[in-house]
Amino acid sequence: MTEISEGRLSSRVRNLQPSAIRRMLAASSRPGMISFAGGLPAPELFDVSELQEAAGAVLSRNSHSALQYGATEGVIGLREELVQIMNRRGLRTDVDKIIVTTGAQQALELIGKVILDKGDVVLVERPTYTTAIQTFRLCGANVLGVDSDNDGLRTDALERKILELRYQGLRPRMIYVIPNFSNPAGWLTSIERRRLIAEVAVRQKVLVVEDDPYGDIYFGSPPAPPIYAFADKSKESAPWFCYLGSLSKIVAPGLRIGWAVLPSDLVQPITIAKQGSDLQGSTYTQYVAQYYLRSGRLPEHLLMIRKAYSERCKLLSEALRRNLGHRVEYLQPKGGLFVWVKLLNDINAEDVVEKAIAHGVVYVPGGPFYSDNPNLDTLRLTFATAQQGDIEEGTRRLAAVLCVEPRAS
Amino acid sequence: MTEISEGRLSSRVRNLQPSAIRRMLAASSRPGMISFAGGLPAPELFDVSELQEAAGAVLSRNSHSALQYGATEGVIGLREELVQIMNRRGLRTDVDKIIVTTGAQQALELIGKVILDKGDVVLVERPTYTTAIQTFRLCGANVLGVDSDNDGLRTDALERKILELRYQGLRPRMIYVIPNFSNPAGWLTSIERRRLIAEVAVRQKVLVVEDDPYGDIYFGSPPAPPIYAFADKSKESAPWFCYLGSLSKIVAPGLRIGWAVLPSDLVQPITIAKQGSDLQGSTYTQYVAQYYLRSGRLPEHLLMIRKAYSERCKLLSEALRRNLGHRVEYLQPKGGLFVWVKLLNDINAEDVVEKAIAHGVVYVPGGPFYSDNPNLDTLRLTFATAQQGDIEEGTRRLAAVLCVEPRAS
Repeated sequence: MTEISEGRLSSRVRNLQPSAIRRMLAASSRPGMISFAGGLPAPELFDVSELQEAAGAVLSRNSHSALQYGATEGVIGLREELVQIMNRRGLRTDVDKIIVTTGAQQALELIGKVILDKGDVVLVERPTYTTAIQTFRLCGANVLGVDSDNDGLRTDALERKILELRYQGLRPRMIYVIPNFSNPAGWLTSIERRRLIAEVAVRQKVLVVEDDPYGDIYFGSPPAPPIYAFADKSKESAPWFCYLGSLSKIVAPGLRIGWAVLPSDLVQPITIAKQGSDLQGSTYTQYVAQYYLRSGRLPEHLLMIRKAYSERCKLLSEALRRNLGHRVEYLQPKGGLFVWVKLLNDINAEDVVEKAIAHGVVYVPGGPFYSDNPNLDTLRLTFATAQQGDIEEGTRRLAAVLCVEPRAS
Repeated sequence: MTEISEGRLSSRVRNLQPSAIRRMLAASSRPGMISFAGGLPAPELFDVSELQEAAGAVLSRNSHSALQYGATEGVIGLREELVQIMNRRGLRTDVDKIIVTTGAQQALELIGKVILDKGDVVLVERPTYTTAIQTFRLCGANVLGVDSDNDGLRTDALERKILELRYQGLRPRMIYVIPNFSNPAGWLTSIERRRLIAEVAVRQKVLVVEDDPYGDIYFGSPPAPPIYAFADKSKESAPWFCYLGSLSKIVAPGLRIGWAVLPSDLVQPITIAKQGSDLQGSTYTQYVAQYYLRSGRLPEHLLMIRKAYSERCKLLSEALRRNLGHRVEYLQPKGGLFVWVKLLNDINAEDVVEKAIAHGVVYVPGGPFYSDNPNLDTLRLTFATAQQGDIEEGTRRLAAVLCVEPRAS
């Protein structure tokens, strides 16, 4: 940046860097590149004809409302549909607690704004969604990782960490988790861990923000209900649980429909914060989403995308085993869009990525998914947008790269 | 709010109140109410059939892109159309400097985030857009009014204020203005004042943020070009001018398409900040806007809405003269959506509003449009959504209320 800009930028953004993932996505579009780097759903799976039907019907029947300003909280009919979705996911709620957001991303920021003061601590999984880390930091927070494994956040470590932080005079204010097929790790938080997270949150009075864009993309049985469902139903529990949903991965990201299910007392502050952010999301796409959900097509569409992603996941997992079996460790995920890979032989995924790109394959190095102390021998692959032939060839290219590159130490 | 929420809200939101305007809008929807309170464009003027055409064409021809994630900065084809709009408005720019935002409101917040540290000063017109005041405050700024009149911001007062603030050790960082048919006052900043604002900004190195949602809704001749067009074209001038545009008032708010024309060095920080806010706006509505603009229908549509709003403005102005002539002062605006009224006889518009609502008419009291030292004898009326019969009857009801109510002092 120029001298002028450095002098005039606010302290909150002065040291921000563009997302590493977006840089990888730029490489993805080069000719001949096989990309495992995206986090995008597969466009050929979009339910275009039904969305087209919904989009047309909205402007035929509701043009005045759908093109006009609307409530900051979101279109009421859509929020009613989202209540139904929440019921199916095992969380009873009502429209008054649901706010529609511009993707779940905006909900992260709004909650951050409303909860976090400078220096407050947000506890996250290791690894976690990289833009969440950045968003909470933009709100002034100190984002710290808690040890995690295939069953999710290590709850023994969680409560210890909260107590240690308090002892140091710090304020742990939020526990951010992606319990279902997490980005990037693909992990599924076990029922036992959900129960324990809920207990810790209530006992320690720390807000759980549960981000669940992938829960409907399961390959076997559906995931357990949201964490709040495991809390006792007392008045003391209610304030400590937020749930974030999104249509981006299951319907279409381009609509930018996310939502937050909030504790009652946060609804008004979040609404006011949203007024300052953008007044409201697109009324039109909210109506389109409402019409689409009301058409009843979603369950059938979900069957189709689960089958498609499940097959791609299997292909990638098998190709990894075949072509990189002795050089990597990974867990075949039970849902979501991602395979999380640990490189053996002490290879640094960040160091190798430029070479991989030169070989015509790109992935996302794992570093940015850690708030602190990154495990640099990790990387994220998506199978969502990879075609069958590309998966085989792409993993071979990866093998060629990883075969010869010792870690620079 | 409950005890829990007070304890856990961040300091930035702890004292926020819901927008007074939104409260008035709630009263607007009561049966029998005649509302001059809105800030909404007239839905019967929306170009529904052409937007329907655009919306359908997008999903027929570009469904994969339009439903997918896209660039944070916005869809390139839309940004190209916006360059054309800027050219027509008298400001030459290029796509690399344009970022699409969720209404101009989001641009306000992004610029605030990127520029403002706690305690920094934003200078605004007296009166100005109330949500802008709130947004800059949420970024930690100290928002201060500068005297203004029918020709806009008093530029003599502006430079003096900047120097005084610096002398006090404060940092004036931004001048926020709505030069064309401002909300709420309907004022049009004169050419001379535009030139002077540009000079002060460059000389004092303070960023001008020019918010222009209403410039295309002129009733006589078009307004002068944007303020930056009056700055000399040196390298020293370029960093000090932002321009914000919006399709909300001229096409449809429900699309939520706004944009910012930025100094080059702010493009990257704003883009990164937007990633944290919502990753991106709706790809779909951006495509719809692109198709609509590319259809070439906008100029004809603008002719139609200018005519309609001009007639409504004339009706309201005449009805005010007829029914409230001796009790109020106002200037018949040359564009926009609003008439700004000063009550005579020392009447407080805030005190009277509940009585007005009881009489079946609602307006927005002027207080919230001031950052400090509000003129409480002012109020804002919109003619945009008022029907002919309602304008006559509504102003009569206003007259009945204002006739008898002396100011409580």
